[in-house]
Amino acid sequence: MATLATDLARRAFGEELIDAGLLMRTGVPGVFGRSAAFEDTVERVDRLVGSIAARDGAEVLRFPPLLNRAHFERSGYLESFPHLAGAIHSFAGGERAHRDLLDAVARGGDWSAACPSTDVVLTPAACYPVYPALTGTLPKAGRLVDVMSYCFRHEPSDDLARMQMFRMHEHVRAGDPDKVAAWRDLWLTRAQEFAATLQLDARCEVASDQFFGRTGQLLADNQRQSRLKLEILAPIAREDALTAIISLNDHRDHFGQLFGITTADGAAAHTSCIGFGLERIALALYREHGLDRSEWPSQVRGALDL
Amino acid sequence: MATLATDLARRAFGEELIDAGLLMRTGVPGVFGRSAAFEDTVERVDRLVGSIAARDGAEVLRFPPLLNRAHFERSGYLESFPHLAGAIHSFAGGERAHRDLLDAVARGGDWSAACPSTDVVLTPAACYPVYPALTGTLPKAGRLVDVMSYCFRHEPSDDLARMQMFRMHEHVRAGDPDKVAAWRDLWLTRAQEFAATLQLDARCEVASDQFFGRTGQLLADNQRQSRLKLEILAPIAREDALTAIISLNDHRDHFGQLFGITTADGAAAHTSCIGFGLERIALALYREHGLDRSEWPSQVRGALDL
Repeated sequence: MATLATDLARRAFGEELIDAGLLMRTGVPGVFGRSAAFEDTVERVDRLVGSIAARDGAEVLRFPPLLNRAHFERSGYLESFPHLAGAIHSFAGGERAHRDLLDAVARGGDWSAACPSTDVVLTPAACYPVYPALTGTLPKAGRLVDVMSYCFRHEPSDDLARMQMFRMHEHVRAGDPDKVAAWRDLWLTRAQEFAATLQLDARCEVASDQFFGRTGQLLADNQRQSRLKLEILAPIAREDALTAIISLNDHRDHFGQLFGITTADGAAAHTSCIGFGLERIALALYREHGLDRSEWPSQVRGALDL
Repeated sequence: MATLATDLARRAFGEELIDAGLLMRTGVPGVFGRSAAFEDTVERVDRLVGSIAARDGAEVLRFPPLLNRAHFERSGYLESFPHLAGAIHSFAGGERAHRDLLDAVARGGDWSAACPSTDVVLTPAACYPVYPALTGTLPKAGRLVDVMSYCFRHEPSDDLARMQMFRMHEHVRAGDPDKVAAWRDLWLTRAQEFAATLQLDARCEVASDQFFGRTGQLLADNQRQSRLKLEILAPIAREDALTAIISLNDHRDHFGQLFGITTADGAAAHTSCIGFGLERIALALYREHGLDRSEWPSQVRGALDL
């Protein structure tokens, strides 16, 4: 979809950030080092997202960026997004297998045959470890969880806004369908207010995930028709190539069914989540307000406690 | 090495933390969810470690918990610790391979054949992405870098102090051999003061890494004889089974040679690092001072700004 001009513009903004020392290349597309200032911006956005969850009385849960492989298999992620998943493999062998592995490394060869899969995969979205933790009967009011994690998506790209590993701060709501729908409606307004507070030139759109394969197109069409995914988009690379910075997702009873999360009356709970892409919001801030934070508008600096 | 009694004691302390809701099981040994309070303790330790680096004028660098596979292969980690490494594999196939993958998942089978290795592995220690970033000639005074990251080690265990993914905050010093040696001497004293400030019943010992295989024993013996690794140990599970909470490592010119880090006079730079195990220090604090942070000694609360 990206035109040559878009690619060049993306690289140009990337070069600007790298020249300014905010991000550093690591030799792998989509994997960057971060300077103290960039990290500080990410952390300030993180605290802003967390402060809203705290006012809503959310429970805070944190996980390392790992997911139990059995939970991952059950989640349905491999049906929809096999191409984005990251499985962790580890060496399992004796001294002979080790010598073969080192020979392969020395030859510049592939040493993966010596490394079978382990019990863990990388977290594809911050909310994935939350659903297995909610298994059981919810209290009458449902639950609201605040979770933040590094997430992995295997999509090596020169686009700075499409990192292979990035942080996502999510609020996850679980409960009766009507309570979850009301929470989503609330956030549809709030998400736009959030972007406005940061003075980002953002807009809201019905969206779909990057489902795999031909049947994936049908899933994406259905997701759009049912308005299951709404995104707040903002310019990162350039005006006419918007990137999602916030995503509001309606899972209906998908995770409730899969992980045995039930409402007080015994039905499968509905769940919904709102995810804030922390690096993307930081990038949108630098794109909109410039690389020197001391020159950002006072309202933005105030919101970030800068 | 662990006796049955030690195993039981470890489980007992683990149960206490889990019963108190500070940590949560995920169904995989060594992978735990963290409560708001536990996370807050980790973050306060993190800030304490960072504040010392800031006073020393360290540059702050942050990386996602990923390492360029080519840098990882060059680092020598696979020679010494193949069993602890985590390689990231991703699905690479079309619709047919996807159907086969889903069939394997449905059968409860292995789907790893569809997932070749990618360009990235998990970071085994926070300092690994730093050395490739230091390639080139150092300034006369050398460099001092502050880095913090989640790290992965494939050692599934019921021991809470041996998590598969945990955070490590490191200070990395690179420069002339004498400057690096002086920095290490300084930290040998400071590391013990750090533990004393937190009123941990810690002691310092010459240590060795968990090298793989029979030749690994020789490497470990050499490491001890040359005093290349010093650890600060504290009780986590029980008094007589100490766990390393801080590790001070002398790499001599190992990384300087491998990544072309040179001193002003053109020699391979020496490097040294001190790593603080953030979850382990948090666990040692709970072990020593109890699960209720409001009852921790005032000096400890002061150091953590509690």
